[in-house]
Amino acid sequence: MELTAVRIDKPDELDVIIGQSHFIKTVEDLHEALVGTGPHLKFGLAFCEASGPRLVRHSGNDDELVALATENAQSIGAGHSFIVFLREGYPVNVLNAIRRVPEVCGIFCATANPVEVLIAGTELGRGIVGVVDGPAPLGVESAEDQLDRKRLLRAIGYKL
Amino acid sequence: MELTAVRIDKPDELDVIIGQSHFIKTVEDLHEALVGTGPHLKFGLAFCEASGPRLVRHSGNDDELVALATENAQSIGAGHSFIVFLREGYPVNVLNAIRRVPEVCGIFCATANPVEVLIAGTELGRGIVGVVDGPAPLGVESAEDQLDRKRLLRAIGYKL
Amino acid sequence: MELTAVRIDKPDELDVIIGQSHFIKTVEDLHEALVGTGPHLKFGLAFCEASGPRLVRHSGNDDELVALATENAQSIGAGHSFIVFLREGYPVNVLNAIRRVPEVCGIFCATANPVEVLIAGTELGRGIVGVVDGPAPLGVESAEDQLDRKRLLRAIGYKL
Amino acid sequence: MELTAVRIDKPDELDVIIGQSHFIKTVEDLHEALVGTGPHLKFGLAFCEASGPRLVRHSGNDDELVALATENAQSIGAGHSFIVFLREGYPVNVLNAIRRVPEVCGIFCATANPVEVLIAGTELGRGIVGVVDGPAPLGVESAEDQLDRKRLLRAIGYKL
Amino acid sequence: MELTAVRIDKPDELDVIIGQSHFIKTVEDLHEALVGTGPHLKFGLAFCEASGPRLVRHSGNDDELVALATENAQSIGAGHSFIVFLREGYPVNVLNAIRRVPEVCGIFCATANPVEVLIAGTELGRGIVGVVDGPAPLGVESAEDQLDRKRLLRAIGYKL
Amino acid sequence: MELTAVRIDKPDELDVIIGQSHFIKTVEDLHEALVGTGPHLKFGLAFCEASGPRLVRHSGNDDELVALATENAQSIGAGHSFIVFLREGYPVNVLNAIRRVPEVCGIFCATANPVEVLIAGTELGRGIVGVVDGPAPLGVESAEDQLDRKRLLRAIGYKL
Repeated sequence: MELTAVRIDKPDELDVIIGQSHFIKTVEDLHEALVGTGPHLKFGLAFCEASGPRLVRHSGNDDELVALATENAQSIGAGHSFIVFLREGYPVNVLNAIRRVPEVCGIFCATANPVEVLIAGTELGRGIVGVVDGPAPLGVESAEDQLDRKRLLRAIGYKL
Repeated sequence: MELTAVRIDKPDELDVIIGQSHFIKTVEDLHEALVGTGPHLKFGLAFCEASGPRLVRHSGNDDELVALATENAQSIGAGHSFIVFLREGYPVNVLNAIRRVPEVCGIFCATANPVEVLIAGTELGRGIVGVVDGPAPLGVESAEDQLDRKRLLRAIGYKL
Repeated sequence: MELTAVRIDKPDELDVIIGQSHFIKTVEDLHEALVGTGPHLKFGLAFCEASGPRLVRHSGNDDELVALATENAQSIGAGHSFIVFLREGYPVNVLNAIRRVPEVCGIFCATANPVEVLIAGTELGRGIVGVVDGPAPLGVESAEDQLDRKRLLRAIGYKL
Repeated sequence: MELTAVRIDKPDELDVIIGQSHFIKTVEDLHEALVGTGPHLKFGLAFCEASGPRLVRHSGNDDELVALATENAQSIGAGHSFIVFLREGYPVNVLNAIRRVPEVCGIFCATANPVEVLIAGTELGRGIVGVVDGPAPLGVESAEDQLDRKRLLRAIGYKL
Repeated sequence: MELTAVRIDKPDELDVIIGQSHFIKTVEDLHEALVGTGPHLKFGLAFCEASGPRLVRHSGNDDELVALATENAQSIGAGHSFIVFLREGYPVNVLNAIRRVPEVCGIFCATANPVEVLIAGTELGRGIVGVVDGPAPLGVESAEDQLDRKRLLRAIGYKL
Repeated sequence: MELTAVRIDKPDELDVIIGQSHFIKTVEDLHEALVGTGPHLKFGLAFCEASGPRLVRHSGNDDELVALATENAQSIGAGHSFIVFLREGYPVNVLNAIRRVPEVCGIFCATANPVEVLIAGTELGRGIVGVVDGPAPLGVESAEDQLDRKRLLRAIGYKL
């Protein structure tokens, strides 16, 4: 078994979601689930079909994001994995909708950070074993950091 | 830490679901959740208890599938992992029911492909680090492949 | 890529939940989700922020459990990972509430066993690739073991 | 406001589900949600569109059940209500899938009993105010009735 | 059709939940869902079976609350309705668990207020058409009332 | 018991959602759930507190919509009912997020139609017994209407 780290190739600050699913119906179901979260979201998604023609299947409502998803899915190359890029919306807006898609097994990460997908390669194929989602923490938050965190979430309107 | 790939031993095209849970109540709750998805589903499941007597616990409504689940759970041998085999139904029919089981942490894969479970062994025990769910993709779908995909899902009645 | 096993440092039989999320709003949302499961639960949680100040963020309603979560999150050090310790309640009581938190990607494990978190380190940072959740199984349950399992779940009131 | 009771016209023992939704996308989404619960389910559904052309919209995979749903939706005639008839499957198998459909507001009843839908008529239109789902209870279960209930659920395989 | 208001007979401040379900499996599934929300919850529940022997079915882990649920279910007498009384826990702790029970159609109310269940009686039987959940509002909250509300939720620990 | 129909006072085509909840925490939780569905949604909400000071509690991120919700909640005046108005988003985008709020019992309707809320008044208070959500249907869709429906959903991007 060979372990490699595949760096997701994306502009800084662009949000990406990576998960595991099954069945090509994933492509239409993820598309419809994402469209259903709101009228402004732009997204592209790709899915690694792992039987029959074994194609990277793709969909979305933004050509650039679809192309980006397709290229990164090819780099990952793990059977039944999927990848989604988002604009005009954030992962927090869509994770529960993605989770309800009946083909989805799980979600590895959702992030705007630089991210590496850790891949195990065997004779059979490739599998995602984890992600490095940004760098390691530098310290522990103090009482003042805690106030800053709470203020920030209130300033941007997420919490009351 | 030693990494090994355990090949799931199953007939071609038989669907398998592999996940992580906790607590032996998983066995009855998964059984009842699966029975509750419909009157025709046949299944067998097994769960690796990781404390006390540490037995591979099993249940189901089809003896052959229960035996298959038990054998494969033994090969995996990872604490609190579970495995389910299905007939007369597909993973897409049951993943949301499995996800709602209050002991279930996550689902690694759901597939009819050949599948390897990637295992890390330490002095403490064994843990699933990922799955290879079928072979890697061969290319990117074209506009025509896309139409074929949509036609197929409509021909088998899943999409309208 | 370097693989290491980080042993969770906790008292025997204390329940721990480890997962992957994103965005510092996780800290307040997990706190509120856990408080919302019942008036008796005691918990501490920590989350590895992976951008900006990159602090281990923490919250809870029990100082000792918050300190334990913070220390173990530092040992794990994987971007966007979180850890929760519970008293006066069990993972089975809270996993569905945690799963509904809109920032949560997935849950690696929930357990009172000794547990190792398997970490991959790269130049970018650290990522969780799996867990060893207690020791491997010793055998397969017999018909009598099965009766014991059912009796136990009924004796403690979980099943009827 | 005029109150009337509309008797659902259906064969004895046929299962019906009645709910409130919005938007004509309901028709396709309910169809796909029901197909997704398993390969054997037969169903027909109808939805009372309440703007534009205001048609009883219908779908399903069994013509007889679709016709039955359409006729009963016309009798109900309440804006944005829907009705589903099932064969080869039971409401318990599909209610959570129906609830996840993003247009569905709520479910009034799911039953094989004789059922009356209670309708309020105003100048604006008609609204469902409740259902009479079978006759009133005759007594309270005794300890022996309780054992019979538990035995029945175990004999038919729903509980362990 | 005759409309009546049935007053729920309960001690002041005791929490009650009233809903619509189907199938006697509701009784065990509600019991197990409620037990699964935490180790301290005390509850009693009753369900109006609407076919066959048509008994008020009941369960719980507190005899007094079971008796109270049974008596009130008899007063309601609406086919497939259920009622739950809680102690050592609040509706906010259990509504999502109740909603996930696959037999549950909907929930009419959850409240510690005085409550009336509005019943329509026909020749067929009785149906719940609504609830009066406490008295009508007296005014609109001012900015100062709003601060009080926020302070209260933070003082009792529900919000941060 | 007196039955009346309260017409929701709103601009044509503005979307409204009406439901039943409990506990003043509803106000903050609905606000945060709605904010969490996407960065563009504008909304106002109000909730009829039914104990203590019994105020119409309100929140939102658009003053006009908050005022509209408050006025309509006063007209409804039913204990523990809530009402939400939306702009820059549709009910289909938010119903599952509202349903997950742990205080929410159920949702009566979601609609841009003219809508009447059917209210029962007793000595105790007021309760919602149903809604008239737009006018009754005029006919049954033909095969051609069906094609039009499918074309429309694809033209606006909701279905593929």
